[in-house]
Amino acid sequence: MKRDYAGYFDYAAATPTDGEILSIIDDYAVKNFFNPSALYSSGSKMREVVESARRSVAKVLEVKPQQIIWTSGCTEANNLAIKGVMSQYPNAKILISAVEHDSVYLPATNYQYKIIPVDDNGIIDLAKFEDLLDDSVALVSVIYANNETGAIQPLREISNIIKKYLHSNPKRNLPLYFHSDAAQAANFLDLHANGLGLDMMSLNGSKIYGSKATGCLYISSSVNIVPLVNGGGQERGLRSGTEFVGGVVGFSEALNKSQAMRSEVSKRISELQVYLEQNLIKMGGEINTNSDKLPNITNVSYVGLDNEILVLELDKIGFMVSSGSACHAKSGVKSRVLSSMGKTEAQIDGSLRISMGRFTTQSDVESLVRGLEEIIAKNR
Amino acid sequence: MKRDYAGYFDYAAATPTDGEILSIIDDYAVKNFFNPSALYSSGSKMREVVESARRSVAKVLEVKPQQIIWTSGCTEANNLAIKGVMSQYPNAKILISAVEHDSVYLPATNYQYKIIPVDDNGIIDLAKFEDLLDDSVALVSVIYANNETGAIQPLREISNIIKKYLHSNPKRNLPLYFHSDAAQAANFLDLHANGLGLDMMSLNGSKIYGSKATGCLYISSSVNIVPLVNGGGQERGLRSGTEFVGGVVGFSEALNKSQAMRSEVSKRISELQVYLEQNLIKMGGEINTNSDKLPNITNVSYVGLDNEILVLELDKIGFMVSSGSACHAKSGVKSRVLSSMGKTEAQIDGSLRISMGRFTTQSDVESLVRGLEEIIAKNR
Repeated sequence: MKRDYAGYFDYAAATPTDGEILSIIDDYAVKNFFNPSALYSSGSKMREVVESARRSVAKVLEVKPQQIIWTSGCTEANNLAIKGVMSQYPNAKILISAVEHDSVYLPATNYQYKIIPVDDNGIIDLAKFEDLLDDSVALVSVIYANNETGAIQPLREISNIIKKYLHSNPKRNLPLYFHSDAAQAANFLDLHANGLGLDMMSLNGSKIYGSKATGCLYISSSVNIVPLVNGGGQERGLRSGTEFVGGVVGFSEALNKSQAMRSEVSKRISELQVYLEQNLIKMGGEINTNSDKLPNITNVSYVGLDNEILVLELDKIGFMVSSGSACHAKSGVKSRVLSSMGKTEAQIDGSLRISMGRFTTQSDVESLVRGLEEIIAKNR
Repeated sequence: MKRDYAGYFDYAAATPTDGEILSIIDDYAVKNFFNPSALYSSGSKMREVVESARRSVAKVLEVKPQQIIWTSGCTEANNLAIKGVMSQYPNAKILISAVEHDSVYLPATNYQYKIIPVDDNGIIDLAKFEDLLDDSVALVSVIYANNETGAIQPLREISNIIKKYLHSNPKRNLPLYFHSDAAQAANFLDLHANGLGLDMMSLNGSKIYGSKATGCLYISSSVNIVPLVNGGGQERGLRSGTEFVGGVVGFSEALNKSQAMRSEVSKRISELQVYLEQNLIKMGGEINTNSDKLPNITNVSYVGLDNEILVLELDKIGFMVSSGSACHAKSGVKSRVLSSMGKTEAQIDGSLRISMGRFTTQSDVESLVRGLEEIIAKNR
């Protein structure tokens, strides 16, 4: 199967569903398709299966099972975290980093919000963050690892600053919660929510070789949150709708597998990333994030070239890369993320995101490098 | 495969995924798993596939493709319809029938709402509905066919009353939209949105032999609506999140298949329903809806018996039926639907929902009748 994915360098946009996980999903679609809310034993078994998957995810995050809420993906989880909190405090403010995904950025713009600036590597400025904390802030949302550059944010330090601030300001009227979108992080980084100091964390099944339309939001018991979707009362009333049983079991298996493999995969892909970036630089590329970042995401700029042409030319010879986040690729909107890092228009116009995954091999990367060399030579 | 479902009489709670549809979903999970927002050709193909599925659903509903918005199910579609409209008109009122599913009822309770009463068959009182229409009503939501009783609401008549009212009150400041939850109707009834006079209609993949976590909302172009979930801008900005490509293609196929089979399946199941109900009455049962209703749902009360015991005893001998809607079965809350129809507590406590589907045969129904006879004899 692996060879099917040889030219695929867009794992940050979508991962194929793992074969074992697909078998699980199929079983719950055809044979064990029962509604978990049904009284009879086949229904009760589905309830047990859903709760067992919840316990399994909770164990990975080192949190309590009842703190995991299934959603239809990370976009919904981010919306639930932000709107579910902010809608209750009409005068409150949310702080978000300058490098959030649109599924955090756009919900935040429904409320009073401020942007935490980032440096030229896309890492947030902790001193400026500290300055932005005041009595009106109810929520801070910072992406764990960025989807365009892979830049990893210092969540523990952010959380420590929040704790220090709360300690010095014990008489606040508002709560102050810390949320992170961990969609891209889940294959490579530690997800212990308490250790990271998070009150909420969003995860996505379709980035970890699970199914699309799966994900979850971790919500600490201290968080005061209201649902976006009301109905049958599933998920402790926080997300109604018949459970996608196969999807959530698949999600829990995918998360376990990703976390079990993460040291090994990280090590292997880090080496590929070093090789890839050395060669991208040889071809005149500028690597856009050189600090702490995911081993699988490289954002490179070829000043003077047009990333859309590069993507389409690479496609013609069998390579799939991105000219930004997949959600933006077709809208023609310039990357908010690269702009906030101070990149010039030419750097943004010439930027590619190359993202690797579980099935990427050294020879795949070598082929991509050769292909890109030819295209760049032709377009210079 | 059919024989696996011999004892299953809870198709209103969940349907198994059709085998052909599962193959489609699997293909888009493993081979064609690409993100539809990606620029390269495999991504563009996914975009085409999603749009082709949208056109196919639009054709069934006789509406325009851009009026179909994919959601993660009917609960989300109902929430989008109600909150997406009502949140814009803080002083407006929503009218809902007394027999709505919780995914309509609970969202409505976030706003000013009034209940349209129903008769003892669960059909809304059109005269009382007309009386409830006033300048403050912005939305009317009436379930197409009820999930507990199968009662079919006269949508065309409701729509005509709305049109007549609007005609006599041309100077209203508010819009006045008509929405229907058609989750249970889709296997048996005509879904032509314009013919029914609907501005919005919700559908559910997991009730029509598609996948869980799939569904859509039809939204007429005249409707002023805002999204619940913001992000990458998918679904014309009305429902962000990476598309569940296999799920939406499966949904469109499932809807086509259900609608293509509906005359034949309706005829066959209607005959089973007549046989079933004759026998339920012989055992002392009272049929709770005797007017226009779906051929597959029968709600029967055995006064003096406890429906929970009946469900569990039937389960022991291999039959799965419901003691209400699946969402309520475990909460211990008495059916709002049967209460609104004027049923007594004893009638509600002794009520069963028996729902048939595509795979139910005469011999399955005969077996259920024999099983229920024994259990009733034992419990009297």
